[in-house]
Amino acid sequence: MISVCFLLLPGTLIMDVAGPAEVFRLANQHLEATGKPAQFALQFISPEHTITSSVGLSFHDIAPLPDLRQLRKSGPVWLVLSGRSGPTASIIHHDPVWLKARAWLTRYVELFKVRADSGCALLTICAGALLLADAGLASGRTLTTHHDFLDELARLAPQAQVMRNRLYVDDGNLLSSAGITAGIDLALHCVSVVAGEGIASATAQSMRVTRRRHRQEPEISPLLQYRHHQHQALLRVQDAIEADPAAPWDSLRLATIAHVSPRQLLRIFRQQLGVSVRDYIEEVRLYTLAQISDIERRMRMVCDWPDFPARSSCGARRRGRQNGLQSV
Amino acid sequence: MISVCFLLLPGTLIMDVAGPAEVFRLANQHLEATGKPAQFALQFISPEHTITSSVGLSFHDIAPLPDLRQLRKSGPVWLVLSGRSGPTASIIHHDPVWLKARAWLTRYVELFKVRADSGCALLTICAGALLLADAGLASGRTLTTHHDFLDELARLAPQAQVMRNRLYVDDGNLLSSAGITAGIDLALHCVSVVAGEGIASATAQSMRVTRRRHRQEPEISPLLQYRHHQHQALLRVQDAIEADPAAPWDSLRLATIAHVSPRQLLRIFRQQLGVSVRDYIEEVRLYTLAQISDIERRMRMVCDWPDFPARSSCGARRRGRQNGLQSV
Repeated sequence: MISVCFLLLPGTLIMDVAGPAEVFRLANQHLEATGKPAQFALQFISPEHTITSSVGLSFHDIAPLPDLRQLRKSGPVWLVLSGRSGPTASIIHHDPVWLKARAWLTRYVELFKVRADSGCALLTICAGALLLADAGLASGRTLTTHHDFLDELARLAPQAQVMRNRLYVDDGNLLSSAGITAGIDLALHCVSVVAGEGIASATAQSMRVTRRRHRQEPEISPLLQYRHHQHQALLRVQDAIEADPAAPWDSLRLATIAHVSPRQLLRIFRQQLGVSVRDYIEEVRLYTLAQISDIERRMRMVCDWPDFPARSSCGARRRGRQNGLQSV
Repeated sequence: MISVCFLLLPGTLIMDVAGPAEVFRLANQHLEATGKPAQFALQFISPEHTITSSVGLSFHDIAPLPDLRQLRKSGPVWLVLSGRSGPTASIIHHDPVWLKARAWLTRYVELFKVRADSGCALLTICAGALLLADAGLASGRTLTTHHDFLDELARLAPQAQVMRNRLYVDDGNLLSSAGITAGIDLALHCVSVVAGEGIASATAQSMRVTRRRHRQEPEISPLLQYRHHQHQALLRVQDAIEADPAAPWDSLRLATIAHVSPRQLLRIFRQQLGVSVRDYIEEVRLYTLAQISDIERRMRMVCDWPDFPARSSCGARRRGRQNGLQSV
């Protein structure tokens, strides 16, 4: 059994804990359903007996910080460090509970060294990587964090290689994720390493994860990236383009939707989104092509797509059935 | 302010609560960052003061079940019902806490009626829909649940329309999701209705949701669907196909990977996966085409794809730049 210890601090992001914890719980269920023993023993530890999470829900009866060397004797130990709400400036170097956790962590630097083969691993979700860096465990390692904390992580651990725009990074016994939902992807990756691909996929399916994301995937998608503004006219334009990315959009049609002049549209578009209308449409088209997951709708759209004439694509599909796959 | 009340019962799936709760918390943050007031006041309620969640973590200081008519006077009320671990047969009609929650819920049937315009809404995640159905609130409504509970839901609410293979269903003031991660998609949908698309997208981005999923999306993806077995040879074959879906796979090549005869491969493939090798490859190809999200890799693959000759697709892309989008 692997002891998976979730370190809880005041303001712990409940999703950072809940996502991976449910992954490990369901992986145990799927293991047992196939006649194998459960692999993950979940523990919740903290310098405090009771803490209040990010959303105001309080956890209690939390176990004290254990002696990891002692715990290690009964099997591998994975320590999960989560993000927490609130400004980091008032927490790092200041918050007494943070300092207690940090002091405890520094006692085990040896256990978590690169390729130490100590049977101990560190998993960080979101800003959890900051505590790790503050305790001196990131030096010489490759890791990532939520994009809001990338610069802070690099400052806390100047000798670490901080990866940007990654869902998660696997650096041997240090596994870090961008958080918040990326913690689920990281935990599924860990399950697949320990319990195999079948169990990881069954777990993802139980959780209604449509597709497991890979560590190389960019953290940011174009459909969301360009929607941080509050300009209602532009949002209408973006909705129209997203709803029908293959349409022959021109500035006049889009300006009509926005109720502004074509010239004004091009200006505010670039001003608010930092990208030209043309490049935006191009990105949405590429992204949509890759992301549409409903097979029927996809087939219809692929056939209608101006870039992929119906005749050639559907003909090729038929040829594929007749030739390449004939022997199968 | 909307009072968002999460009903907690013993064994509550922590992810069913954490996902939507973080969505509403982050939406408040993004609203405040744009100078608007927070919209969602989170409350955690239960017949019990303390409960232990699905993963063994205990919640305490939970508020008692409120008088919803009284609460309604200070603003809209949304009640969130989550799934719980454990066999439903021993819970429904038997568990005393379930019965208390059910009795409380039946007092408010009028508040949650279709188009009652009462300012009250029900959100169900995963098996949360079962409690709703047991309390008689699903009659005449359209809703969904986790696929493990679809038949049970239909039995508990014979006068409801139970939707299969949907991420979530919006039936006015009754919003139901397949759970577990689909609760996040449902909560983002609610945020977009109340606070607008910009806030919903910014929230999704903070949570590292790559793409917001739509309610019509199927609950099950082919890449995960066919991996519930534990047959190592077949998993190797599936890995090979997924890694290079466009390759000219034939039964001999695949049999070599599986270390079995081609005839044997076709037999065990159909036996274990319930689908022919040819149809499986076809599904993986279609799905992969739609899902690859890294733009560079996608561009390369789309151009290399046997169904979409490089010349025609890339040529059309260039023409698109020159013609349709020229005025933009």
